[in-house]
Amino acid sequence: MANPTAAMLVIGDEILSGRTRDSNLHHLAQELTRIGITLCEARVVADDHADIVAAVRALSAGHDHLFTSGGIGPTHDDITADAVAAAAGVPISHRPDAMALLQAHYDRAGLPFNDARQRMARIPDGAVLIDNPVSTAPGFTLGNVHVMAGVPNIFEAMLAGLLPRLTGGAPLLSQTLRVLRGEGEIATAFGALAAQYPDLSMGSYPFVQQGAHGTNLVVRGTNPARLDEAMLRLTRLFG
Amino acid sequence: MANPTAAMLVIGDEILSGRTRDSNLHHLAQELTRIGITLCEARVVADDHADIVAAVRALSAGHDHLFTSGGIGPTHDDITADAVAAAAGVPISHRPDAMALLQAHYDRAGLPFNDARQRMARIPDGAVLIDNPVSTAPGFTLGNVHVMAGVPNIFEAMLAGLLPRLTGGAPLLSQTLRVLRGEGEIATAFGALAAQYPDLSMGSYPFVQQGAHGTNLVVRGTNPARLDEAMLRLTRLFG
Repeated sequence: MANPTAAMLVIGDEILSGRTRDSNLHHLAQELTRIGITLCEARVVADDHADIVAAVRALSAGHDHLFTSGGIGPTHDDITADAVAAAAGVPISHRPDAMALLQAHYDRAGLPFNDARQRMARIPDGAVLIDNPVSTAPGFTLGNVHVMAGVPNIFEAMLAGLLPRLTGGAPLLSQTLRVLRGEGEIATAFGALAAQYPDLSMGSYPFVQQGAHGTNLVVRGTNPARLDEAMLRLTRLFG
Repeated sequence: MANPTAAMLVIGDEILSGRTRDSNLHHLAQELTRIGITLCEARVVADDHADIVAAVRALSAGHDHLFTSGGIGPTHDDITADAVAAAAGVPISHRPDAMALLQAHYDRAGLPFNDARQRMARIPDGAVLIDNPVSTAPGFTLGNVHVMAGVPNIFEAMLAGLLPRLTGGAPLLSQTLRVLRGEGEIATAFGALAAQYPDLSMGSYPFVQQGAHGTNLVVRGTNPARLDEAMLRLTRLFG
């Protein structure tokens, strides 16, 4: 059976203006590869209700899972929860269990649990909370959409709690052959070999080291025996 | 007049598998902000013909410019030029001026100008070449689609040559007020101020320093006088 598929939606003006460099996509990609869920597509959109709704609808319909990052804090530009509720056509309200978690958190910190902080307890009807061990304000799963924070250490902590709930497939394995020749020199033979292994994905990634051109040949797939066989043939060709 | 809009399309299995961390989006975002082109959306897709064609069509139709990175090398997984030609419905062939550039490059290097390397001279009909001062193989502009390499130093060099050709708008300016209070404490007043400046974009970005919560309040816009006025009011509120 084919592995489950996924998409990612990164939400935030700060990524598109160049103020912040996103790191959540790279982390999610590595984690999904490890557990055998294929990340097929990613998008970055601004803090704009209509843009988020459209992207959530398109990506959740096209894949088994959609992971989002960003826009679930207490300020006016944190509009992800409302947009995800609108995309699914369900109501959203301050949810008692999320209110209780946050109330206890701010009580412990001796800080007022004001209107802005209460916004973080707004959760679409029917969602399952995602634990936030860093700063309490929860993420949530609604249908196949997993909504998480944008701050990298919180995103990573939420994802670590979420992934064991999901059913992955065979982990995507990869092997790399490092060749001290340019891409253009090995491309024809490499392409011919790749055509004989339609079940594997083969890519080449050039590098320059001390002025010399080299290429990393990467073979990816879920079947270890096929991977070994292809690597053996690659090594005979170029090793 | 509103600034021109743009989208970015990052092409490559290696980004979605987590093997490689994309850095071209962040670089492009910073450069476009500097010259007054608004980056509205970015997507990452795999080395898949149908996916690239669909994304190129959607993003080039929705924005003044589309910038792509990746997939223009000599190997079998480099399929961007063909997909961009297909998206526009124009033929693609080995173009004489690109062939001449590459022939001279490989002659100088004493390397054979073989079939794989000749693939890098395949350019859609009607395109304008984008100079590659690093490794010669050109990018190209077809309509409003600017096709560049994925290797970061080549992407950056191509972009540096391309941008002076494009007409930007007023540069997007930004100012930041660093506040040693949590987001939840300042969110209500910050949101109320933001509502009074619909021509500016205001965002808040939390940080933790030595266990204390702080927030960077960022105001962005193209009118320096409005920006100064909003920052003055922000500073009175929270400074």
